[in-house]
Amino acid sequence: MASTPANTFAGNYLDRRAEARDAVDWAREARGDSGTLFVVSAGLEQLVLAEPAPDVVFLSAEHPLVHALDDGSLTLLGWFRGARCVLASVQAEAIEAARAALPATARLSELRPLAAQLPEDSAGLLAYARALSYWRSRHQYCGVCGSPTIATRAGHVLHCTNDSCGADFFPRIDPAIIVLVTDASGERALLGRQAVWPPGRYSTIAGFVEPGESLEDGVAREVFEETGVRVASVRYQSSQPWPFPSSLMLGFQAVAASHEIAHIDGELEDAQWFTREQIAAGTPMLPPSASISYRLIETWFNAGSAIPLESQPNVGRWTTPRG
Amino acid sequence: MASTPANTFAGNYLDRRAEARDAVDWAREARGDSGTLFVVSAGLEQLVLAEPAPDVVFLSAEHPLVHALDDGSLTLLGWFRGARCVLASVQAEAIEAARAALPATARLSELRPLAAQLPEDSAGLLAYARALSYWRSRHQYCGVCGSPTIATRAGHVLHCTNDSCGADFFPRIDPAIIVLVTDASGERALLGRQAVWPPGRYSTIAGFVEPGESLEDGVAREVFEETGVRVASVRYQSSQPWPFPSSLMLGFQAVAASHEIAHIDGELEDAQWFTREQIAAGTPMLPPSASISYRLIETWFNAGSAIPLESQPNVGRWTTPRG
Repeated sequence: MASTPANTFAGNYLDRRAEARDAVDWAREARGDSGTLFVVSAGLEQLVLAEPAPDVVFLSAEHPLVHALDDGSLTLLGWFRGARCVLASVQAEAIEAARAALPATARLSELRPLAAQLPEDSAGLLAYARALSYWRSRHQYCGVCGSPTIATRAGHVLHCTNDSCGADFFPRIDPAIIVLVTDASGERALLGRQAVWPPGRYSTIAGFVEPGESLEDGVAREVFEETGVRVASVRYQSSQPWPFPSSLMLGFQAVAASHEIAHIDGELEDAQWFTREQIAAGTPMLPPSASISYRLIETWFNAGSAIPLESQPNVGRWTTPRG
Repeated sequence: MASTPANTFAGNYLDRRAEARDAVDWAREARGDSGTLFVVSAGLEQLVLAEPAPDVVFLSAEHPLVHALDDGSLTLLGWFRGARCVLASVQAEAIEAARAALPATARLSELRPLAAQLPEDSAGLLAYARALSYWRSRHQYCGVCGSPTIATRAGHVLHCTNDSCGADFFPRIDPAIIVLVTDASGERALLGRQAVWPPGRYSTIAGFVEPGESLEDGVAREVFEETGVRVASVRYQSSQPWPFPSSLMLGFQAVAASHEIAHIDGELEDAQWFTREQIAAGTPMLPPSASISYRLIETWFNAGSAIPLESQPNVGRWTTPRG
């Protein structure tokens, strides 16, 4: 994929082998294979090793935490580092109860603050696991008739147990556009900030795509809604899975047709045009480097600067992951 | 949006004014405005005028079909051709009962077979209406706890009525990649066919993006899963809302790194490499021109042909919309 930069969480780290989901006895096979790697989720947190270097905790089928689970709490993720890999969704209390059988530094953690410290493939794997955990929690009952659902297709379809309904629910992804808008000269970038962010933090314009619009329609609508600026041209750059809880970030660069920041909608507290000089001097502070927002800003910055953004000594960066 | 061709259903035909959804009395205002345009959906069909030229049937607030509805069956779409526009979701039987108060040629119809005959803005409006109708039907009950939901934010959020749960459900879009793969020379295109299609019909490779993968990851995975071909580079082309029932088609062009069609997965019956000469001669038959699939094939074809695809006399085209 030489045409796109590697965004955090992106990458075919996992061989998903979708056809393996159709095997009726997939869970028995997974439990019978001593090489199967079980990844553990509790709610939106995952079991990780905190030290020496953060990584995923992989359990075997014989581990008491996995052994006690029914098959309906398992989801086949695919093959990771050559081994079959299965998501085990447990209650947080079960982890405490199994504490003695776990590595001493194992703990439940949210993915986002760990993302930059994890091996790339582990971060990608946990992004997938987190997205599926959240999705399963949101479809425990059928939205059409209210009956309970059961997991089928190795956990990738939630099926309504009411025979007269029988609706199937599939994993959900919410496409969101994120866009670096420049002025016609390319010298200034349009960044906005939310009121809940610490002072000085700005980021690119973003928002969810709505039904009935293309990505390009969504870019134009969001930029106008949030800032009153009209865009003249829109160019796709790259994409990033962003399972917080279920987004797919679709990164664009756009050139403005109008430059007046005519209004700010309720989502933003402020929006401004910033030059490279301002950014190099440390104001505004930029989002963390694991985000596609940073990548979009960096691409624009580096196209017009002899010293790349990464090597600028005074650039301000968020010290905590983006909210 | 000069950078992307206009795909059917794409285009900012509607001023959505998302902030208007927050007005608590939006439905009263809409009913009190004699200019409000009500679009009628029953299930996945919409009320259209069949003759003289197909178009949407717009009803006023006073029309008995609209008057009888409770506000919970309404969704604010936005402003269309300058007028406030509201989706009214009714039972098909209600339309029959109100037959005398409707234009003689009004009928319920699926959008897809009509798309090419509708005015562009009407097609875009109905694509949006259809997507929201389907989404609402799938979240009548809370997926977290099974309680009934109610419509809030002018029909754009379905809210769980169980106070101890209170989950909110937002409109859903399923991103799908669709890709025209060429060989390294650019002279041949990889097209596949499903067993249920009439003989001779082929189309581009497509499939849903999965959680935890970028669009580019999804392209590489789908092409390999369906044909065994590895892609070397992937380039985004354009996107298209495709509410059948809830897709967003993300069109790519890719260059193959390997050319052997090593296997065909269960989704396809056949996949082959085709030259421009074969396509110009009428084999395979191509998908309808309203689809992004056709657009992707056309872009590749025209880049290497003195006579554009549209002017080729013998090109085979599907006579019915794509299944």
